[in-house]
Amino acid sequence: MANAVKIRVPGTTANCGPGFDAVGIACTIYNELELSLSNEGGISLEVIGEGAGAIPSDNSNVAVKAIKMVLAKTGHNYQGIQLKLTNNIPLARGLGSSAAAIVGGLIAANELTGNSLTKENILDMATALEGHPDNVAPAIFGGITISILDSGNTQYLRFLPPSGFSMVVVIPAFNLSTKAARKVLPDSVPFSDAAFNVGRTALLVGALCSGELKLLSSALEDKLHQPYREKLIPGMAQVLSAARQAGALGAALSGAGPCLIAFTSSNPEEVGHAMVKAFRIHNVEAKFHILNIDTQGAIKL
Amino acid sequence: MANAVKIRVPGTTANCGPGFDAVGIACTIYNELELSLSNEGGISLEVIGEGAGAIPSDNSNVAVKAIKMVLAKTGHNYQGIQLKLTNNIPLARGLGSSAAAIVGGLIAANELTGNSLTKENILDMATALEGHPDNVAPAIFGGITISILDSGNTQYLRFLPPSGFSMVVVIPAFNLSTKAARKVLPDSVPFSDAAFNVGRTALLVGALCSGELKLLSSALEDKLHQPYREKLIPGMAQVLSAARQAGALGAALSGAGPCLIAFTSSNPEEVGHAMVKAFRIHNVEAKFHILNIDTQGAIKL
Repeated sequence: MANAVKIRVPGTTANCGPGFDAVGIACTIYNELELSLSNEGGISLEVIGEGAGAIPSDNSNVAVKAIKMVLAKTGHNYQGIQLKLTNNIPLARGLGSSAAAIVGGLIAANELTGNSLTKENILDMATALEGHPDNVAPAIFGGITISILDSGNTQYLRFLPPSGFSMVVVIPAFNLSTKAARKVLPDSVPFSDAAFNVGRTALLVGALCSGELKLLSSALEDKLHQPYREKLIPGMAQVLSAARQAGALGAALSGAGPCLIAFTSSNPEEVGHAMVKAFRIHNVEAKFHILNIDTQGAIKL
Repeated sequence: MANAVKIRVPGTTANCGPGFDAVGIACTIYNELELSLSNEGGISLEVIGEGAGAIPSDNSNVAVKAIKMVLAKTGHNYQGIQLKLTNNIPLARGLGSSAAAIVGGLIAANELTGNSLTKENILDMATALEGHPDNVAPAIFGGITISILDSGNTQYLRFLPPSGFSMVVVIPAFNLSTKAARKVLPDSVPFSDAAFNVGRTALLVGALCSGELKLLSSALEDKLHQPYREKLIPGMAQVLSAARQAGALGAALSGAGPCLIAFTSSNPEEVGHAMVKAFRIHNVEAKFHILNIDTQGAIKL
């Protein structure tokens, strides 16, 4: 058994438009996690790139938690955990950095302990650690995933759309914890808003599955989470509107934000510049990435 | 221009599981509508089969309303409307009998006035008459449809699933108006119930698009309308449960009920008998039809 392994995990965008807690997409932005296990020593952590100096190197680190979960489940007793993270996914921005750390940790530890866990086991464990499956599922499987919790079990579907599109992800220069973004959501919503989101979600999944991307403009509308989160992200409505005016098929919050994401089949650069400009009017500095759908999910390098 | 035409329109099941007001399926049960227009005379109506003696023959008849809408829109002034309806779709049971009458009337009148309206025009007019697009869309286009109202315009997607399945529709011997079934729905719902339905709807559409029918069991779960409508349909939970126990992939209310529908890839007869038996325990007489997906929608015969 090798005692070191390197795993590459994609970033993910979840809560896609109306698809709160359910629809996720793996993106071509990656973190790498290198893990060595040994019988002695404690936890050592090196972080390069996003999160350097900010990511804790103790048991509160989610990658460490994930690794220890695999060791416990597979009956291994390694004391030495050497981790090197090379991060491109920005932290706490709505691009699945925590899901990537969890999935990387689980898969790396599984590789080093005899590969006894299936991808479905990994999904269940990742969901338990993350609390919801919508980022971890695409991080594991790549592509577009729909995932739900059904009586504690994760059910998922993974597919690739027949027509390609680019995702323009605009990253404002502030972060927002998922916890804070969850806090602004109401306990109850008008029945009509729930029905609105059901219809849009159906249309979104249908449009993505069938490649009818012109429907995305209507299909990305949401009344369940975005209206409540707008106050946390200065200029959000204007940035989404700027994306559509610049030719995007549709635009939405990425995950719990503050990243905003536009879907486009042409001119992604223009869309990105228009979104950054709209943020700047609200005194928010931002940069953008043009990403595609990652089709592989987490892989061993 | 012919002055008589015969149109066949499929029944439809809507509100499919969690897909309230959005997901509809055309079924292989049909009504036929024969229309003659003339310059003189009033409205005459003959009804054979379901609804004979119960369907009004004046302006309150939805097929007549639909015909008059086309005449007004296309600038025709026929005073004589001779209608013959041969109905197999039971009335007010949740199988789209009113949508079939509207769509039949619109398409027949369009045929007799020069076919100036597109199917999309017909969809918008049918939605205006019916109030929502989820039954009229599959009645027009066949297959499975997702349809929403977006600022007064109907957006829709139509597809056929790659894997076939049967639908067992159980028809209890009482009817339930959509109005009464809407009345029991609450004004607001817990946020978690709305998110629950969003996830199930995403999984439902994904499962139907991709043919991953084993997901239907989870994907047909609903917290938005079925729990509130249960009290209107004695034995509903037990009938749905009996369908699943007899091997159905999943089961749900059809439209606003009282029909219940099970989806199955094997033994539809057994599923039907199990459902009828479960209804009988609650003193409800019922019969069942085994239907497939209609792929054509409304056609001229």
